[in-house]
Amino acid sequence: MDLSSILGLIIGLAGLIAGYLYEGKFDFSLLGSLFQPSAAFIVFGGTIGCALVAFPMSELSQLPGLIKIVFTQKTYNEIDIINQLADLSEKARKDGLLSLEQDAQTNSNEMIKKGLSLVVDGIETEVIKDILQRESYLHESIFENGAKIFEAAGGFSPTMGVLGTVMGMVSILKNLTNPEELGPMISVAFVATLYGVLFANMFWLAFANKIKVKAGREKMITDLIIEGLLSIQAGENPRIIKEKLNLALLEKMSKKGGAKQEAKEAEG
Amino acid sequence: MDLSSILGLIIGLAGLIAGYLYEGKFDFSLLGSLFQPSAAFIVFGGTIGCALVAFPMSELSQLPGLIKIVFTQKTYNEIDIINQLADLSEKARKDGLLSLEQDAQTNSNEMIKKGLSLVVDGIETEVIKDILQRESYLHESIFENGAKIFEAAGGFSPTMGVLGTVMGMVSILKNLTNPEELGPMISVAFVATLYGVLFANMFWLAFANKIKVKAGREKMITDLIIEGLLSIQAGENPRIIKEKLNLALLEKMSKKGGAKQEAKEAEG
Amino acid sequence: MDLSSILGLIIGLAGLIAGYLYEGKFDFSLLGSLFQPSAAFIVFGGTIGCALVAFPMSELSQLPGLIKIVFTQKTYNEIDIINQLADLSEKARKDGLLSLEQDAQTNSNEMIKKGLSLVVDGIETEVIKDILQRESYLHESIFENGAKIFEAAGGFSPTMGVLGTVMGMVSILKNLTNPEELGPMISVAFVATLYGVLFANMFWLAFANKIKVKAGREKMITDLIIEGLLSIQAGENPRIIKEKLNLALLEKMSKKGGAKQEAKEAEG
Amino acid sequence: MDLSSILGLIIGLAGLIAGYLYEGKFDFSLLGSLFQPSAAFIVFGGTIGCALVAFPMSELSQLPGLIKIVFTQKTYNEIDIINQLADLSEKARKDGLLSLEQDAQTNSNEMIKKGLSLVVDGIETEVIKDILQRESYLHESIFENGAKIFEAAGGFSPTMGVLGTVMGMVSILKNLTNPEELGPMISVAFVATLYGVLFANMFWLAFANKIKVKAGREKMITDLIIEGLLSIQAGENPRIIKEKLNLALLEKMSKKGGAKQEAKEAEG
Amino acid sequence: MDLSSILGLIIGLAGLIAGYLYEGKFDFSLLGSLFQPSAAFIVFGGTIGCALVAFPMSELSQLPGLIKIVFTQKTYNEIDIINQLADLSEKARKDGLLSLEQDAQTNSNEMIKKGLSLVVDGIETEVIKDILQRESYLHESIFENGAKIFEAAGGFSPTMGVLGTVMGMVSILKNLTNPEELGPMISVAFVATLYGVLFANMFWLAFANKIKVKAGREKMITDLIIEGLLSIQAGENPRIIKEKLNLALLEKMSKKGGAKQEAKEAEG
Repeated sequence: MDLSSILGLIIGLAGLIAGYLYEGKFDFSLLGSLFQPSAAFIVFGGTIGCALVAFPMSELSQLPGLIKIVFTQKTYNEIDIINQLADLSEKARKDGLLSLEQDAQTNSNEMIKKGLSLVVDGIETEVIKDILQRESYLHESIFENGAKIFEAAGGFSPTMGVLGTVMGMVSILKNLTNPEELGPMISVAFVATLYGVLFANMFWLAFANKIKVKAGREKMITDLIIEGLLSIQAGENPRIIKEKLNLALLEKMSKKGGAKQEAKEAEG
Repeated sequence: MDLSSILGLIIGLAGLIAGYLYEGKFDFSLLGSLFQPSAAFIVFGGTIGCALVAFPMSELSQLPGLIKIVFTQKTYNEIDIINQLADLSEKARKDGLLSLEQDAQTNSNEMIKKGLSLVVDGIETEVIKDILQRESYLHESIFENGAKIFEAAGGFSPTMGVLGTVMGMVSILKNLTNPEELGPMISVAFVATLYGVLFANMFWLAFANKIKVKAGREKMITDLIIEGLLSIQAGENPRIIKEKLNLALLEKMSKKGGAKQEAKEAEG
Repeated sequence: MDLSSILGLIIGLAGLIAGYLYEGKFDFSLLGSLFQPSAAFIVFGGTIGCALVAFPMSELSQLPGLIKIVFTQKTYNEIDIINQLADLSEKARKDGLLSLEQDAQTNSNEMIKKGLSLVVDGIETEVIKDILQRESYLHESIFENGAKIFEAAGGFSPTMGVLGTVMGMVSILKNLTNPEELGPMISVAFVATLYGVLFANMFWLAFANKIKVKAGREKMITDLIIEGLLSIQAGENPRIIKEKLNLALLEKMSKKGGAKQEAKEAEG
Repeated sequence: MDLSSILGLIIGLAGLIAGYLYEGKFDFSLLGSLFQPSAAFIVFGGTIGCALVAFPMSELSQLPGLIKIVFTQKTYNEIDIINQLADLSEKARKDGLLSLEQDAQTNSNEMIKKGLSLVVDGIETEVIKDILQRESYLHESIFENGAKIFEAAGGFSPTMGVLGTVMGMVSILKNLTNPEELGPMISVAFVATLYGVLFANMFWLAFANKIKVKAGREKMITDLIIEGLLSIQAGENPRIIKEKLNLALLEKMSKKGGAKQEAKEAEG
Repeated sequence: MDLSSILGLIIGLAGLIAGYLYEGKFDFSLLGSLFQPSAAFIVFGGTIGCALVAFPMSELSQLPGLIKIVFTQKTYNEIDIINQLADLSEKARKDGLLSLEQDAQTNSNEMIKKGLSLVVDGIETEVIKDILQRESYLHESIFENGAKIFEAAGGFSPTMGVLGTVMGMVSILKNLTNPEELGPMISVAFVATLYGVLFANMFWLAFANKIKVKAGREKMITDLIIEGLLSIQAGENPRIIKEKLNLALLEKMSKKGGAKQEAKEAEG
């Protein structure tokens, strides 16, 4: 459970509804006016349509998984991973690399699982690094594409809202027989703008940002795992591994430090 | 048939029309109000005019082909291409490079066709690579220019829509003899905004994005083809070619991996 | 005559006027409402004023020349230039470099003229290259600055249009003595928005883009000329020059290829 | 106390209120209309909600500290720091590095404190530099993330304001029983737009910018401290240290100079 | 006197006022409606307030000087500077470097003055270059920061204008007792939008651009001066200095050439 995502939606929607009710002197029957199927058809149908035209099916099919990522929290964190890798290295030093076979099957982290089985199979260091990094890149590009789709939806959504309001006005102004009904009908037309702006900001754009932040953290963890597994294979001292990873973590936690690090790797 | 493009337009337009009809209590005669020749003249005439001033004829003439690309799906995919290249390499190893002459004429992929005929003619590796890459670049730049034109149209279109509405208001307010007709006339004026916003988002901007995504995938395939053809010429083992290409594909599927690859090539 | 620029303005304006007349049931007297000196004063005066504050006189004085470029087409094209250079090289090989003296005076292309006279004078290769490239850079920077000014005008113009409408509203609302005149007066105020948006999109921004595209093509041609002239000086075979230039042209026609080329030059 | 931040809010808000009262002929009872709990619920609830969805809790928890930074001024400045470092270097030259132990505990600047204790402990130069730079990077990334959150809030806030006004209109138009109340009710709805635009510009976006500027200055100071401490460790002459740091300060004060400097360091 | 800046404001404001008067049938009493203290309080107070929160006092204090730069023209130009440097070099060749002591005190250009006194004092070439370049960088960064502040003001100003209009509407709609006064009062409210848009475009954004252009030219001149002074110190031939500087000027006048030049320097 990603607390901030869920809390954000609760606080945000509660604030909007509280303000709306306060203005209407807490006449709860007004809440019904906020639910307009016509606006929903236009805004969601339109946004989904635009997204389908703009992106290929294969990328759009990743969205449900990405929405899940916005609302769930990984059960492990950087410190856990470092400790786990240090434990594995200790075991490997005591009982040999082959003793990790069991862990290669049971570890809860997919990356560690895959990496350990490669280590146990005695694959070359360079090849392991390549395979794991490619995996990490692939993962990251799914996150990035997802963020891009949500950003695009965040751009389409308010314009579809405006479209819905304009369409409502076209329909209203065309049949202007009863001026007294004008108010409530315009009210309905405005709901489309409301949906378009609300979903763009509190959902699509905010989701895109959360996914980007999580992708950055995920990358940090997979980098730690790769570094740790290679150290295990090299038979390094568990304590030194732990220290090295802590240092690497600190460095990665600052973007600049990370950028510098990458620059160094690119050079060396 | 690019399913997502066609589905996108269907879902998007269906959503808009459903919402519009729902709001008008399913009075289907209202649909007529959405078709206004005046708005169409202004929005499409204006957008086409701006695009013609902004781009040279030679680039604009590529647009019909690019629209076709948005709505069609290549019949081959990465995996097919890899298998095909592996088969060709096997044939070449068995019966010599000259046995590929037939394939150089019949292969359905233009790039493979051209490349094979160069290989059969015994052209130098470096020259083949150069020719095919130049071809690939040229292809890519057509995609890129097309995306740029659609993006520009996506910028011109909503402003032309606003222009149409403003022009409608000018015309309406000038001859304000019959206030009762005001509503329906403003309704007509709003349709220009509707056209401008709708076509910008669900067509031009979405087309531009789809073309960019497809250009990326196309580039991936032509890179595979170039790599494969050079391996065939070098007489490499079909199995190794297949593995190499699969690896290259995986790498290319993640943008970062691709970027890294290019950086390496630039260095070496 | 740049066909697409002229056609663009004709189609664009025709579309707008057709739509406007269609909406007004082809009452041609309505056309007069579109011409409002007050709106013209505000939009053009304001845009020119902003541009004068934002740019120095020396750059603004280039604008008439740049507008001419938008509407005219060079009488020569890449293929002509390549053929011409090949002919010149043949002449030079037959009758010596000095035989080009006549051409150095009569050639219609300024760049070839200047380059030939340098070649005839026996100036060093490196120096000729430097002089011609500096010329080419200077040319290009005039194009770029021009595009920048038009882009700035494209930003100032719609805001001046809004300003005009706001000023109109201020004037109208201040003297609200006769409500019946309100409609026609607001109609006048709207014309400023119309001018601002129309000129920004169909003129200034579109001009900026066309100039950028033409600058790219111009650069392609001057690069070909420089390469060709240096080959002539080196006494290369006309056929080889032609082939080399054709190859270079193909490479330059794809942006990426050009970028790669430059990267190579920067390295070597 | 950061004078410009506090003065800015006072002048800005005073200007707005003065203008508002002037327009209402100094009827102070009008001030009450500016305080609408409904608008506050919608704008602040909505903005906080969007920010919570978009950013993880850990980054949002830094905000109170960052707001404090906007309104407080460091008690030390570049010149003070340089003098202090020169004094410390003199003491170290006279009484040995160990004499700095006391200063390592009492110095008011966290960075100097940490650095001195490392120097006193006889840690290697390269390691000290690494530790202090990592600290500096970490610090900087907190500033950067904070600026990013405020910028995001500056984007969410006006849209939430528009949302509030739209919601107000929906509620008003729905129950259009008493046309006389329409004016005051719309007035209330507009207050949401007012809050959204005001807080976006005078608070969130302006805060983001101030934090960025301060981060730049902070970095300048920490760079000076690192350079100074390493010189102290190397036992350099206090006068030369002072001159060196003054020179470095001058260089850093111009972005370009700083950029060049970094480029040099990256090379060497 | 920077003619284009002053002419720009005159033409721009004249255009606006002419259009405004034309629309009001040259009723000059209408001009008074454009001057609304309430709008001025809100727009200027608000913009200044936002700028104070966003930037530190030290940078804001540079603004008066920068506004002066927008409206004044340097009395020297590139050609003057080149001639002057050539004259100084001739004098130095005839009577020795020490003969320049007088010029080091009387020259009207601050940069030449400082540079000459360094040359006369016999400071090393590398040090002179460093000192002058640092001076040039510092200068340039003041220009850049100024442009950034004006750009920020250009962003705050229109939103403050909208704020003023919204505040006006709040005040008007609250006390809707006399519908006949509604028109003139809304007219007053609109003036805030007018101020906000006008000052953003014709002043702040245009100033920012002019300052950037002038910074570029200033940099060109200081680069020429540095190159010239170093040539004087090296005792080069005046004619060669002149030619070298003319060449450098031509190169710098085209951005690309300049960029290439810098790239070369960075390499060598």
